[in-house]
Amino acid sequence: MIFQTATREDSDRLWEIIEPIIRAGETYVFSPDSSREKMLDYWLDSDKDTYVAKLDGEILGTFYLKANQPDRGSHVVNAGYMVAAKAGGRGIGRAMADFSFSEARRLGYTAMQFNYVISSNTIAVSLWEKLGFKIVGQVPDAFMHPKLGPTDVYVMYRKL
Amino acid sequence: MIFQTATREDSDRLWEIIEPIIRAGETYVFSPDSSREKMLDYWLDSDKDTYVAKLDGEILGTFYLKANQPDRGSHVVNAGYMVAAKAGGRGIGRAMADFSFSEARRLGYTAMQFNYVISSNTIAVSLWEKLGFKIVGQVPDAFMHPKLGPTDVYVMYRKL
Repeated sequence: MIFQTATREDSDRLWEIIEPIIRAGETYVFSPDSSREKMLDYWLDSDKDTYVAKLDGEILGTFYLKANQPDRGSHVVNAGYMVAAKAGGRGIGRAMADFSFSEARRLGYTAMQFNYVISSNTIAVSLWEKLGFKIVGQVPDAFMHPKLGPTDVYVMYRKL
Repeated sequence: MIFQTATREDSDRLWEIIEPIIRAGETYVFSPDSSREKMLDYWLDSDKDTYVAKLDGEILGTFYLKANQPDRGSHVVNAGYMVAAKAGGRGIGRAMADFSFSEARRLGYTAMQFNYVISSNTIAVSLWEKLGFKIVGQVPDAFMHPKLGPTDVYVMYRKL
């Protein structure tokens, strides 16, 4: 697998990955009816470093890194990850995560923090725990889950 | 005490309140040398509802409300508060907090979350606990304190 900086030229392929995740509405905060423009502007925002993961020339995943706070908090990186629906279960998320940790270190970050891991997303929670993250916070009812209603959100953290 | 929407015309007075707090560098994430322009752009950003607290016509405090997340998380409000240095200990913070809770309810929010309460800021932590907030998260070393070095940060939360 190779990792490259994502560009606006990757938009069509990125949207193929992002759209079903957003439409399902169960793992990200965004409304299920969010537009392509809104989501690509978010994912490729200039305040982020965004990457694609390619296997045999095909983009199968994407993630971003961004400072979780400015200035005196800018040593902690925030990140978001998405894997193409058809590529699930093949270790793409795990491989992206491993690369993202070393890339974040290279960029000077010393820890990674997720602010909004939806507690019902057990696949993500258990992957992050396997990769050394701890749940360091739990915010009650912070996510309006389309099926489950008000759902807790975890803050997760690990040193890099 | 009366509360009004803050405008750009309040900039001089707001900066008198904000500047010493930012220069001290111990309670907000921003670099102590942050500029007036940067801080006023932050405090009066269009993504926030910003207010001033006036006593006898003089602005003695200011706070903002803003959605802590978009879309499916936008029922939770984030807030920040500052009291004029010369007005400390007179209950201005407490009065602003009480008003901010009812104002946030009026705007449709159902809970309030602070993402970044610096653990060494015991005056703030104890005020928020008195006002019904719980510490729901603790992020290790997330703030580079100018005197104490790496310092934990609390996530605090209450229903409205």
